[in-house]
Amino acid sequence: MPGPFTLGQIASRLGGRLVGDAATLIRQVGSLEHAAGGQISFFNSRKYLAQLSGTHAAAVILAPEDEKLTGLPRIVVAQPYAYFARVSQLFNPLTQQAPGVHPQASIAPGVKLGERVSIGAGCVVGEGCSIGDDSCLYPRVVLYPGCSIGKRVILHSGVVIGADGFGIAPEEDGRGAVGWVKIPQIGSVRIGDEVEIGANSTIDRGAIDDTVIEDGVKMDNQVQVGHNCRIGAHTAIAGCAGIAGSTHIGKHCIIGGAAMIQGHIRIADHVTVSGGTTITRSIEQAGTYTSIFPFEEHKSWTRTAVLLRNLDDLFERIKKLERKGPAE
Amino acid sequence: MPGPFTLGQIASRLGGRLVGDAATLIRQVGSLEHAAGGQISFFNSRKYLAQLSGTHAAAVILAPEDEKLTGLPRIVVAQPYAYFARVSQLFNPLTQQAPGVHPQASIAPGVKLGERVSIGAGCVVGEGCSIGDDSCLYPRVVLYPGCSIGKRVILHSGVVIGADGFGIAPEEDGRGAVGWVKIPQIGSVRIGDEVEIGANSTIDRGAIDDTVIEDGVKMDNQVQVGHNCRIGAHTAIAGCAGIAGSTHIGKHCIIGGAAMIQGHIRIADHVTVSGGTTITRSIEQAGTYTSIFPFEEHKSWTRTAVLLRNLDDLFERIKKLERKGPAE
Amino acid sequence: MPGPFTLGQIASRLGGRLVGDAATLIRQVGSLEHAAGGQISFFNSRKYLAQLSGTHAAAVILAPEDEKLTGLPRIVVAQPYAYFARVSQLFNPLTQQAPGVHPQASIAPGVKLGERVSIGAGCVVGEGCSIGDDSCLYPRVVLYPGCSIGKRVILHSGVVIGADGFGIAPEEDGRGAVGWVKIPQIGSVRIGDEVEIGANSTIDRGAIDDTVIEDGVKMDNQVQVGHNCRIGAHTAIAGCAGIAGSTHIGKHCIIGGAAMIQGHIRIADHVTVSGGTTITRSIEQAGTYTSIFPFEEHKSWTRTAVLLRNLDDLFERIKKLERKGPAE
Repeated sequence: MPGPFTLGQIASRLGGRLVGDAATLIRQVGSLEHAAGGQISFFNSRKYLAQLSGTHAAAVILAPEDEKLTGLPRIVVAQPYAYFARVSQLFNPLTQQAPGVHPQASIAPGVKLGERVSIGAGCVVGEGCSIGDDSCLYPRVVLYPGCSIGKRVILHSGVVIGADGFGIAPEEDGRGAVGWVKIPQIGSVRIGDEVEIGANSTIDRGAIDDTVIEDGVKMDNQVQVGHNCRIGAHTAIAGCAGIAGSTHIGKHCIIGGAAMIQGHIRIADHVTVSGGTTITRSIEQAGTYTSIFPFEEHKSWTRTAVLLRNLDDLFERIKKLERKGPAE
Repeated sequence: MPGPFTLGQIASRLGGRLVGDAATLIRQVGSLEHAAGGQISFFNSRKYLAQLSGTHAAAVILAPEDEKLTGLPRIVVAQPYAYFARVSQLFNPLTQQAPGVHPQASIAPGVKLGERVSIGAGCVVGEGCSIGDDSCLYPRVVLYPGCSIGKRVILHSGVVIGADGFGIAPEEDGRGAVGWVKIPQIGSVRIGDEVEIGANSTIDRGAIDDTVIEDGVKMDNQVQVGHNCRIGAHTAIAGCAGIAGSTHIGKHCIIGGAAMIQGHIRIADHVTVSGGTTITRSIEQAGTYTSIFPFEEHKSWTRTAVLLRNLDDLFERIKKLERKGPAE
Repeated sequence: MPGPFTLGQIASRLGGRLVGDAATLIRQVGSLEHAAGGQISFFNSRKYLAQLSGTHAAAVILAPEDEKLTGLPRIVVAQPYAYFARVSQLFNPLTQQAPGVHPQASIAPGVKLGERVSIGAGCVVGEGCSIGDDSCLYPRVVLYPGCSIGKRVILHSGVVIGADGFGIAPEEDGRGAVGWVKIPQIGSVRIGDEVEIGANSTIDRGAIDDTVIEDGVKMDNQVQVGHNCRIGAHTAIAGCAGIAGSTHIGKHCIIGGAAMIQGHIRIADHVTVSGGTTITRSIEQAGTYTSIFPFEEHKSWTRTAVLLRNLDDLFERIKKLERKGPAE
């Protein structure tokens, strides 16, 4: 574990304006609520004012407009949360796994590994894959043949990259559906630099062309990305989201948890999709988009659901009322 | 396989009032529909009256109010389904895996294993983890470093405990979003006693403090629990549900399949969330909550969807009609 | 890699009417957009007319009504997409894994393996399982004990077959809920021929009777099938869909991505469930069913959500307006 560092050393390494005792010794980061001596915390929102007042943190990172809210030694910066992240990186390694290939991993011949790559127990890396410098595959990641992974990529346990996309063609005879013909999935997956993919997420190989995850994309757990998708640089995708095949998402988008984006559509840059939202057609304008049925106590919901099915009737009744007109 | 037992032996061991031949020999449990000779079944709902009449079960477990519905040997108890579960446990081991560590598992040095722990092939247990007595990890479970698992816990295949939470801080320069800074996830995961977690579910480690799963929690497959969540004792979470980070769920809750609970909220004890429901804010009252868009034949749905987008207009038109007033 | 074949050889092997130079040499399939020399593509929809005009493909597969849209050598068939799938199968093996059991797989004693079965690294096959001829388990598939897998089945990485179903019985004392009693899951899973199951999908074993996946079923990634489900032959289930326990789905159904089908219901043959749809009761008629809340720009959605909660009030106000009647 690196450190300790004084507050002054932190500010001189990462920037920010120091207020208070520069010699304050910092050993680790902590939350406002539970920080103990020697820990530095951050303050980001006035919602947590009570926690700021009561904190046992040794120092706090906060924004200029909040500077006067505490008498503790502090670092004042425009973006306290991002700064806190960098401070935490000083004290804590970005991955918990040493470089090298675990003896219980299975690496096919001809795989290209960069420097300081870390591959955990039970990983399986198929023929023709390449993995860039400083990337980390936690235990039990599978790369199907031919996938390329950039530098400083983190793949969490259970991730599967390059399984066959869901490519099946319906076959009929004169009387209707007979079954499905599998379309060999001969594209691959290309993942850029500084991508992180959460546990048990899956990214399918392309049907003919490749599936592409651009630099800096961050995905949470149990995300599914279909074949031939392209996810733009620095887009973040929260847990349980699903992106159906051939959809292209722009750069700097935020896709909320359990959001579902249908196939063959285009999402512009800087789009936010709320958690639990289903996107059924392309979005051309930056902005935030939502489609959540507001939850209610079950009995009220039952009533709302019935009324919703009868909206049609409601419109008809209003039309009727309108037609009666002022003459009556 | 334990047994056989007579009906009398079962009742004397597990309680309940025996009606009929105590010597009836029971070898296994079965469903009313498919039970064969020597099998005991249960009856729980008048919906299954026809199946009760036609059953080939040797004996039936049922409630006092249903006692007269069959002439078969029977055990009469207040909670037939829970009793049936206990009878089934008499005949069937709770896990299908013998105690011991499989030679193809990878256990880091310093891991603390309780007595009679069972760890299947391909499991990976990181440094500093502890696993309580009589717990079972089916093949291919991963515990990241530092996680603690209670007693009599069952973790199904593909479960990942303690992967990094989705902690990323946005970074901007003067012109807008630049990218994300990873926040090292230095908390851990603590799982209580008698917890069961379904296949391919994921529970993330805390950002700073720990993620906590209390005693007796039961989770189905493909459930995702974000960092710093706390799931209260004896809460049951059905398949594909997702709980976003820092959310606390009370005790004795039931979270339906594919439900999605947003981050940083509080759910009281004894709350039921219906399957397919999205919870977007805290719930302070016990009760059942729902947010499902009622499904319809596609054409009707198309109409409903358009009308829904025009609700605003509808309200305006009604206001207009109301303003005309009785004077006209 | 098999091939090359002339266009004439392809047509004589797979049928279809050949127009243009039968000696055209084909080495691989390609997309209209990116095909290079020696590649054959397909044309399926007038949406892609511009791509057809600009394509560098050596030949195209298309329907009789589109025959005149290109001057390229072509094969004219009633179902171009299914035909394209078969052509691609000529050039590309259906699985990327050689037959045989990987030394890092764990196969219990007494497992029955058919001919030419392929089992990847890290797979775990429990006691009493059977796997039919020509089936392929990609790395890290787990079969719990007693599961049977048909012929020509493809199971992708991370699939878990036969984990315990979510069978728990609530137990109460006089004062309310105490906790859950686990019901041993003693049924199994039976999977038919020509089934394909996507990465990280899970299919639970039956509580008492078996869970059944019939012939020709195709599932995408991260699909969850609960205990005692029956999925009818040739039904296709897209990514992230969840089928709760004891639900029976008919033959030739299409279940869209992230659809959620509640437990204990029946879905008729030839039903299509749209992506993102929640099905809460049985469906007896073939057809397409949908329940998606239409997404909107977030501010508009906020308004719609409020109005939706007030639908009740709206109906009341209309009733009031109607009661005023023509007399006024």
